[in-house]
Amino acid sequence: MADTARIVGGSVTAPRGFRAGSTSCGIKSDANTKDLAALLSDVPCVTAATFTTSKAPAAPVLVCKEHLAASGFRAQGVIVNSGNANCSTGERGMKDARTMAGILAQQYNFDEQLAMVSSTGIIGRFLPIEKIISGAPAIDPQYDGGDDFAGAIITTDTHPKKIALEFSIDGKTVRIGACVKGAGMIYPNMATMLCYITTDAAVEQQWLQETLRDCVEDSFNMIAVDGDMSTNDTVLVLANGLAENTPIAAGSPDAEIFAESLRQITKYLAMEIARDGEGATKLMEVRVSGAATDSDARKAARAVTVSPLWQCALAGSDPNWGRIIAAVGASGAVFDHNRLEITLGETRVVQNGLAADYAQADAKAAVSGKEVIISIHLHNGVAAATAWGCDLTHGYIDENTTYTR
Amino acid sequence: MADTARIVGGSVTAPRGFRAGSTSCGIKSDANTKDLAALLSDVPCVTAATFTTSKAPAAPVLVCKEHLAASGFRAQGVIVNSGNANCSTGERGMKDARTMAGILAQQYNFDEQLAMVSSTGIIGRFLPIEKIISGAPAIDPQYDGGDDFAGAIITTDTHPKKIALEFSIDGKTVRIGACVKGAGMIYPNMATMLCYITTDAAVEQQWLQETLRDCVEDSFNMIAVDGDMSTNDTVLVLANGLAENTPIAAGSPDAEIFAESLRQITKYLAMEIARDGEGATKLMEVRVSGAATDSDARKAARAVTVSPLWQCALAGSDPNWGRIIAAVGASGAVFDHNRLEITLGETRVVQNGLAADYAQADAKAAVSGKEVIISIHLHNGVAAATAWGCDLTHGYIDENTTYTR
Repeated sequence: MADTARIVGGSVTAPRGFRAGSTSCGIKSDANTKDLAALLSDVPCVTAATFTTSKAPAAPVLVCKEHLAASGFRAQGVIVNSGNANCSTGERGMKDARTMAGILAQQYNFDEQLAMVSSTGIIGRFLPIEKIISGAPAIDPQYDGGDDFAGAIITTDTHPKKIALEFSIDGKTVRIGACVKGAGMIYPNMATMLCYITTDAAVEQQWLQETLRDCVEDSFNMIAVDGDMSTNDTVLVLANGLAENTPIAAGSPDAEIFAESLRQITKYLAMEIARDGEGATKLMEVRVSGAATDSDARKAARAVTVSPLWQCALAGSDPNWGRIIAAVGASGAVFDHNRLEITLGETRVVQNGLAADYAQADAKAAVSGKEVIISIHLHNGVAAATAWGCDLTHGYIDENTTYTR
Repeated sequence: MADTARIVGGSVTAPRGFRAGSTSCGIKSDANTKDLAALLSDVPCVTAATFTTSKAPAAPVLVCKEHLAASGFRAQGVIVNSGNANCSTGERGMKDARTMAGILAQQYNFDEQLAMVSSTGIIGRFLPIEKIISGAPAIDPQYDGGDDFAGAIITTDTHPKKIALEFSIDGKTVRIGACVKGAGMIYPNMATMLCYITTDAAVEQQWLQETLRDCVEDSFNMIAVDGDMSTNDTVLVLANGLAENTPIAAGSPDAEIFAESLRQITKYLAMEIARDGEGATKLMEVRVSGAATDSDARKAARAVTVSPLWQCALAGSDPNWGRIIAAVGASGAVFDHNRLEITLGETRVVQNGLAADYAQADAKAAVSGKEVIISIHLHNGVAAATAWGCDLTHGYIDENTTYTR
């Protein structure tokens, strides 16, 4: 991380010219729960985005893609509802998503193509669009409304997840703010994950898109709660340029600090999602090194995070590393079993594919904390990757046995 | 299924010339639990086998492969221990597995290369080989010992899983007997699954191997309990030829009834494993049709069986089919969301990618029984596949949080 970036408060409204707010319009059964929110820029923004790769994408994802294509990757606002995913809702779902975008554009007086839409919640039910139409005017966006917005978009998350950084470019102070939601159906390319990132930096679109893709690849695409990929996943970066710096592009002197800040933000939020996985009591970080290829490193690291057997062992603070070996062995990554090395925290438990000489109490201590680091050396090359996940507990099952009732 | 095959008792000793037995040699902490078993044929057998594709295979798997290669795919007996997987045990593990094979060969007077070995249990600990050496003579194999053997090889299974069929070939009565163990770490290519199949039919080896591979592909390789593939998976077919039929080969008039019987047996045992998954209260059968390719059909069907979110919904008898759509959407199978059709039991819940007109009570009833059938039509071709899995409950977590303590 560049040494000049500082953490500041305010989430998505930390950068200049962004305001946000929320309301309860009645999509969720509890009338006091926020279920509709909006994020707005004073001026149109250069926009980068990544979406779910599901073959059953939700209507709002399709509408965002349409609008970005039509606007030349520019946007001025986002409207988000929770409680209903508007997925598997066909033509009516597309119409409803366009209606949501239209409400936002009309209310804040910009072109409909500049409006982004997200939905999260139950799949397969039509949106109660009348409730959204009547509720939307009650959203009263504020220039300090970022935390309100971050709180309104969460579903089974136990708390809002947000961050903002500040640094200097061209002698101008620049900020990047962000928030994310997601706790279940998390196995990205992407996760049920909505992430909004704002910045007042001026940034060239193509470079922003490429930088975002790199950051997402090493952050949100490396976390898992349960191996389930969502139909609604969306990451948006809105750059409104109000810091008036020379626009950042590939090769700019300031490209690095911006990219590093974006990388720090996406990694932080990704880890926050894994830590807050449904029912989770522990965050695991799986560091794979010595792989022949990046792909092998990623496969091996992710395989450990989605092994229910290892996730259960972790829940019980049981250093049962045989399950790590089974997961890595089945991952498709190439390695020689007899050179494998595994370290839990600081305790080497496997060397040359065999139980190392270690004290069981040390291994147990290494998996007993709230954050557990698992290092795996494949001794088959120089590629490395890190993935994050959580343990599997009764809490996950309790949250998911009767979700639609 | 051919109309002439009948179910008979006796498991792996139902065919002529096979005997089996077991003992408690102290590998497991409870002194009364059977943990060592042997299966023997009176004469050498034509043998077919499939093993785990894990990159970290256990020593007994490697020794079986060595012996089969050396013997020209012939075997006369199998020795199996539970309580210890003899995996990640390096050279010493290989020596121990060979010692187990040697004990069997010496005790029953056949060539060591004709001895197969299996182990199941905790990964990463050396076998207590002295206990096996002193315990093995107490095994007293009987010609009606099949059920004893089937009971001795199980670990977290709630009951032994076994079957035997009888049919006629050349006017000779032929039998195929089988048993299997496996409840957790089940996501084959293969599962933590040991399966032994015996037959007194005379069968040509290459045809038997090909037929076994086909059967395994549609049975054990289509089940999942938790998405974890084991390091020890083994399926062995021993054909001793004592029925004195003309050896069955490709194109034989009797090839079909034998292959169909083998298919019925492997499918039955695979479903039994899924039904008895750790903590499972329900068996799910996922039938995918209308896929563009076999691979798409298999991917889509298996994706539903390993979706923890859908497994949890199933546990709660919640017909939350949005999670089925999310799983199929993320599976990599190609389809048009707007043509997707999903039926729970007899209740069509999704048509043209949308909620169909159905009564919630009917959908709930369809997922409330002990066996739940999920039919998914992709409307993108003619390929089909069926996969089996189970629900995800507190029981799975309870069984797996402190396994090594």
